[in-house]
Amino acid sequence: MRILFLGDVVGRVGRQVVLDELPRLRAQWALDCVVVNGENAAGGFGITEAIYEEFLAAGADAVTLGNHAFDQREALVFIERAPRLVRPTNYPAGTPGRGAALVETQSGARVLVVNVMGRTFMDPMDDPFAAIDRELDAAPLGLVCDAAIVDFHAETTSEKQAFGHWCDGRASLVIGTHTHVPTADHRVLPGGTAYMTDVGMCGAYDGVIGMDKEEPLRRFTRKIGSSRFEPATGPGTLSGLAVETDANGRALKVAPVRLGGLLEPVAPSFW
Amino acid sequence: MRILFLGDVVGRVGRQVVLDELPRLRAQWALDCVVVNGENAAGGFGITEAIYEEFLAAGADAVTLGNHAFDQREALVFIERAPRLVRPTNYPAGTPGRGAALVETQSGARVLVVNVMGRTFMDPMDDPFAAIDRELDAAPLGLVCDAAIVDFHAETTSEKQAFGHWCDGRASLVIGTHTHVPTADHRVLPGGTAYMTDVGMCGAYDGVIGMDKEEPLRRFTRKIGSSRFEPATGPGTLSGLAVETDANGRALKVAPVRLGGLLEPVAPSFW
Amino acid sequence: MRILFLGDVVGRVGRQVVLDELPRLRAQWALDCVVVNGENAAGGFGITEAIYEEFLAAGADAVTLGNHAFDQREALVFIERAPRLVRPTNYPAGTPGRGAALVETQSGARVLVVNVMGRTFMDPMDDPFAAIDRELDAAPLGLVCDAAIVDFHAETTSEKQAFGHWCDGRASLVIGTHTHVPTADHRVLPGGTAYMTDVGMCGAYDGVIGMDKEEPLRRFTRKIGSSRFEPATGPGTLSGLAVETDANGRALKVAPVRLGGLLEPVAPSFW
Amino acid sequence: MRILFLGDVVGRVGRQVVLDELPRLRAQWALDCVVVNGENAAGGFGITEAIYEEFLAAGADAVTLGNHAFDQREALVFIERAPRLVRPTNYPAGTPGRGAALVETQSGARVLVVNVMGRTFMDPMDDPFAAIDRELDAAPLGLVCDAAIVDFHAETTSEKQAFGHWCDGRASLVIGTHTHVPTADHRVLPGGTAYMTDVGMCGAYDGVIGMDKEEPLRRFTRKIGSSRFEPATGPGTLSGLAVETDANGRALKVAPVRLGGLLEPVAPSFW
Ligand SMILES: [Fe+2]
Ligand SMILES: [Fe+2]
Ligand SMILES: [Fe+2]
Ligand SMILES: [Fe+2]
Ligand SMILES: [Fe+2]
Ligand SMILES: [Fe+2]
Ligand SMILES: [Fe+2]
Ligand SMILES: [Fe+2]
Repeated sequence: MRILFLGDVVGRVGRQVVLDELPRLRAQWALDCVVVNGENAAGGFGITEAIYEEFLAAGADAVTLGNHAFDQREALVFIERAPRLVRPTNYPAGTPGRGAALVETQSGARVLVVNVMGRTFMDPMDDPFAAIDRELDAAPLGLVCDAAIVDFHAETTSEKQAFGHWCDGRASLVIGTHTHVPTADHRVLPGGTAYMTDVGMCGAYDGVIGMDKEEPLRRFTRKIGSSRFEPATGPGTLSGLAVETDANGRALKVAPVRLGGLLEPVAPSFW
Repeated sequence: MRILFLGDVVGRVGRQVVLDELPRLRAQWALDCVVVNGENAAGGFGITEAIYEEFLAAGADAVTLGNHAFDQREALVFIERAPRLVRPTNYPAGTPGRGAALVETQSGARVLVVNVMGRTFMDPMDDPFAAIDRELDAAPLGLVCDAAIVDFHAETTSEKQAFGHWCDGRASLVIGTHTHVPTADHRVLPGGTAYMTDVGMCGAYDGVIGMDKEEPLRRFTRKIGSSRFEPATGPGTLSGLAVETDANGRALKVAPVRLGGLLEPVAPSFW
Repeated sequence: MRILFLGDVVGRVGRQVVLDELPRLRAQWALDCVVVNGENAAGGFGITEAIYEEFLAAGADAVTLGNHAFDQREALVFIERAPRLVRPTNYPAGTPGRGAALVETQSGARVLVVNVMGRTFMDPMDDPFAAIDRELDAAPLGLVCDAAIVDFHAETTSEKQAFGHWCDGRASLVIGTHTHVPTADHRVLPGGTAYMTDVGMCGAYDGVIGMDKEEPLRRFTRKIGSSRFEPATGPGTLSGLAVETDANGRALKVAPVRLGGLLEPVAPSFW
Repeated sequence: MRILFLGDVVGRVGRQVVLDELPRLRAQWALDCVVVNGENAAGGFGITEAIYEEFLAAGADAVTLGNHAFDQREALVFIERAPRLVRPTNYPAGTPGRGAALVETQSGARVLVVNVMGRTFMDPMDDPFAAIDRELDAAPLGLVCDAAIVDFHAETTSEKQAFGHWCDGRASLVIGTHTHVPTADHRVLPGGTAYMTDVGMCGAYDGVIGMDKEEPLRRFTRKIGSSRFEPATGPGTLSGLAVETDANGRALKVAPVRLGGLLEPVAPSFW
């Protein structure tokens, strides 16, 4: 199975590069499953129903979120009628939406998509390690699902690496999101789980984590803000990870994808 | 000028891969300047004088540190007689050692090496932005020094990217350290400063930020530790960044270096 | 029912003032129930079985803990045979010991004692609000227990005040611990729950939260530690809260208790 | 000299209790100097020029601030023409306003008023310990000023206690602000500095740190906000500290002041 995961889409620049590139990649690489993290898609903060639908139309099978999941209040409502929209599973009980979805892809595969949030230097949610155990136990890899994709939305490299080891052998992919900078440590862990500490963002890299650099610089240097954060403009980069899995959902190959913008371009050699 | 920066060396595995590879690389690539971050060289925590001397003997022109600078208490003493050992410049006034050094390399170049610590999600030090202004103003690029290398030891991608923009045009290289995972966003900023959010560590990547994974996993899942952190064993990776600068100290080319161990190997094509 | 809660006992000075004063107070005030927070009793870090037994012998009906619960490793073992020792209930499932105990006091009353940890600026545990709901639902006030005492071990005044409101009407007392400084906001909330943001510590107040002041001052000013934290010496203060409840477990009266040492002395006027 | 310090005034309820009580107290107690922390005076967030003038008219000699200093943008401008308005001194160089003021009181005394911010669990400012050394050295107690009042705006009891010890003998009063809950540990330190970990707020205590309790409770329990924070309504409490100093500016007596609202009333017995 051929899986593509795209990192946090930030604002208009991020959406545009996804809409421009994804349909072509989906066809060209004969992708079986595409998951997009959309927590920053609406002006940098949250997601709207229109954007969610756009992602699906462009070729996404599921859209994951993160700490910005509900920055656009409408998400609290439309998430209930958006079966392919997945918010962090370790929100308190009673939170609208779902933290895991068993989606059928266009090619007929059943893929478990889970979104989990880390806690180190983040708002304290329920235990992500206990939460992922529940989700993975409920849909065992190779039995209930053909692949299991875990988007671990977290700040620190330590919590993310620990989470990857924790899930190794039980998921097809554990992919970090949230820091908006791709890491270069993609690999297949010994148990067959593809892993990358952070997939990076889809957006404009000439800024500060996808936002225009002026306001962040002011806050860091003067300790007094003077305006809202706005998404950066400039050339956009698509940043993702390509994974190929076997019939049991174990990862065979993994390679980063970076197209356009200011980062060095890279694409899988095996497709 | 040809510069190589090597990220946080972690424990015996990290030291070994540096000692094994650096002499060869120095010769093969005709390096003018090598800087190594050594804050985790001694069992994962701090540095000893013997290790510092080993790094110099292997080809380092300077050794930088970070939040673990003084974990080995002897560093508070020997740093005074170690002119190429650089601790974060934004420690309180009166801290032993120096936060910046103008070192003469083996090839006779004068290189400013500065170590600065970030504050977001870290122990609050003096303002890193004001501190780097002082250091860079004291040794202007192309006038007082032939190259200026800034090791920004920080946790978050946002503070690191902001710091890169802040220094752009005034330093040859702003390189992030501390997270122990290399990022894939190396580039030359518009003003001529090479930048990479984090250079990654030299050490064993089959662990949690270079440490054996068992204890971190216990603490994340049980919230009760049961032993000390120990460096991970297993194959070691050398992780660094190669930068070529012009006669004015501006970066012309930049490329990651990763050799050995579990990461995908990469080396500069231009040397 | 007459209840006395004593705050975090810190080291030898703290233990001594409890052992010296509690037997007398228990008799003099005809106390029905005494609970002591013992998380710092052993040299400032954790508790031993011998100290636990000492507290019971001095008149405690239960001993609560906090983030230092297991600093003394023996607590992981003896807590299983210490039915009146209560650690935070929102540790991960599988943690040794119990987070709530229904203890029978010497006067024959059934008292629910719960220990919960906050999460703001603390290690992220399971949701304290969901946890206390489970504990209070399992032993309704006035039905299953004659009084319910909730020790909320937390850092911030905001989380503590919110927790007090959350429990109002369902507990006899919500008492904050952890900051080691008594607050002056004791009162009975509208639903009948006595509340105090922090009860303060039993220990030597001429220090920094009960520890000798030299090392904390060094760390704050130099950012480099030079030794372990040691409990402060000097005169000890007993710091607690007195609560009188009605037949249904609702609080009728509440007053602080501070005896000895450097704080202004105060005792309930109603006993 | 008779000094009254009033803690963080929160919103309309807080302002009203100050305007209602301060003129009377100033006369009745023959106060020489009154300082009010006004960082939350305008709807809970920052201060306006009109409110600043109101505080002066009601009897304040100086108004201090904190992390909310510039929540009302107009403060960045009018602070320059408000010589008795003092913002934290450890903001970056170039911040509008002043971090210390030598004010002449109505009785002709010269009083140094300093505002400093802590760093533990707060936005990282410049070193508060180094900053207070500079301020106190510039206006030695008993020489340049008749009294020195230090408002240390900080989160943790440990940093506040350490700060009190650090300043002991050099200031008349080190008073904590920011947590909005009064502590019961007022005393005169050995060197003659009056100290209290937190003076508490002037405002409505039936809320969460002075704000209406509904929104904080939602955020703690659901992890999703649904509206802005609004000041709590209900009866207001004046919360402050009374200090009497000798001719050299050393504290002789100290006592809390709490009038009105839900806290137990208390006033100095010595005036
Ligand atoms: Fe994001
Ligand atoms: Fe995020
Ligand atoms: Fe490191
Ligand atoms: Fe570090
Ligand atoms: Fe404690
Ligand atoms: Fe504690
Ligand atoms: Fe405040
Ligand atoms: Fe504040």
